[in-house]
Amino acid sequence: MAGMTFEMNASTTPVIILVRPQMGENIGHVARAMANFGLRELRLVAPRDGWPNPAAEAPSAGATWVLDEAKVYATAEEAVADLSALYATTARNREMIKPIVTPRHAAGNMRGQVAEGRRVGILFGAEATGLTNDELVLAETLVTVPAAPDFTSINIGQAVLLMAYEWFQAGDATPAVVLPAGGNKPARQEELEGLFQHMETELTLSGFFRPPEKAPHMRRNVRSLFQRMDLLDQDVRTLRGIVKSLALYGRSAGKKRDQE
Amino acid sequence: MAGMTFEMNASTTPVIILVRPQMGENIGHVARAMANFGLRELRLVAPRDGWPNPAAEAPSAGATWVLDEAKVYATAEEAVADLSALYATTARNREMIKPIVTPRHAAGNMRGQVAEGRRVGILFGAEATGLTNDELVLAETLVTVPAAPDFTSINIGQAVLLMAYEWFQAGDATPAVVLPAGGNKPARQEELEGLFQHMETELTLSGFFRPPEKAPHMRRNVRSLFQRMDLLDQDVRTLRGIVKSLALYGRSAGKKRDQE
Repeated sequence: MAGMTFEMNASTTPVIILVRPQMGENIGHVARAMANFGLRELRLVAPRDGWPNPAAEAPSAGATWVLDEAKVYATAEEAVADLSALYATTARNREMIKPIVTPRHAAGNMRGQVAEGRRVGILFGAEATGLTNDELVLAETLVTVPAAPDFTSINIGQAVLLMAYEWFQAGDATPAVVLPAGGNKPARQEELEGLFQHMETELTLSGFFRPPEKAPHMRRNVRSLFQRMDLLDQDVRTLRGIVKSLALYGRSAGKKRDQE
Repeated sequence: MAGMTFEMNASTTPVIILVRPQMGENIGHVARAMANFGLRELRLVAPRDGWPNPAAEAPSAGATWVLDEAKVYATAEEAVADLSALYATTARNREMIKPIVTPRHAAGNMRGQVAEGRRVGILFGAEATGLTNDELVLAETLVTVPAAPDFTSINIGQAVLLMAYEWFQAGDATPAVVLPAGGNKPARQEELEGLFQHMETELTLSGFFRPPEKAPHMRRNVRSLFQRMDLLDQDVRTLRGIVKSLALYGRSAGKKRDQE
């Protein structure tokens, strides 16, 4: 359409991450949908049938550059380590305290985040099982496609198509929310991961995760809480300083420390 | 189509009309997309492989009612004879004096037309050849999906999905953002203040705010960080638990605590 803006530059468009994709045909459909709407960067986490997969070629309808440049990762954590804004698509109502947004709202947000220099990614789960809770926790925001209540099951090709479509349509959207970050940058996933592990280590040592049978749930809650805070890199350093100070010096050690 | 009489049993959703569809799989994808977004009535004009077609079943993912109720016609003219508002999808720029609209604009229009009691239909062409000029002439309005200029080819399943999706969104009241908070409530200011004072007390005792001349700035940073996190009351309790655990028990006390 005349007047539409579009970008093919990989750094300014969202990364599509397929977690444990099964059918090669579906990966081909995904590549086609990405090419239709100006997305380029595809990441595959543990594709069931390996990669490259010849079954993806025909359904890609010629979007070979997307398939040729696709990268394979062992885990979702590794696939998102360099990203600083992460969305996860889910059909199910999860009991997780994260904002659930429509694809259209997500697309507007993503345009704003890209304009701020953030690297945006969208996680899509396997055809049958979707994303695990531990994978969903990686994302700040969940995306659910509003659909007919009696038939909400949307396949991976359709889900990518709708997200890519909304991304493209939002091409001239003004961001509704901007976080003025001064000289700071949004925390990268690996910085967040460092914070979580630091915190979990100290909390484990301090006996926070009790009783044991509740520990995994508590751990996810703590991650989820900080994940959705949209932290800057400086925030991560501040939080790690807080954890370190409390863990090492505790309540009564301050005076001693002041005398160091 | 203006001036046609309305049927008494007018449906309240658009009719999807596939003209000379080829692959049965694609008809199945169309049925699934229709069911996802609350459409029911499918019409097939001269399907290449006849009808019913077993190849459509698996891709329909259980949207069997759409396939079972599909009707077959010999020509596009016959398939649209009872409709009073007609759209035709086309990827190509036709030299035809008709409005060309986006799917989103079309969806808004269709909602209005249905509210007026009109029977709405959308024509989709064959996979390879699209609609003939004689078929396009049947419609008042052409719909083109805005897409990346170098890769505009969208298949019939994708085209129906996007139209059905936009139709549904145009009538859907799903809020753009929902934060599922469980039974939790947003933290009140006094709960936040309690958290801040708790944290500041423990951080002061642990010697965090050093050097003294930077303490007021550091204190403001810590408050600001937590203030913008949009915390729930449960989050405040979790954070106070973290602070307490680290401050009282610290790194080495966890084992002792476990034995309590």
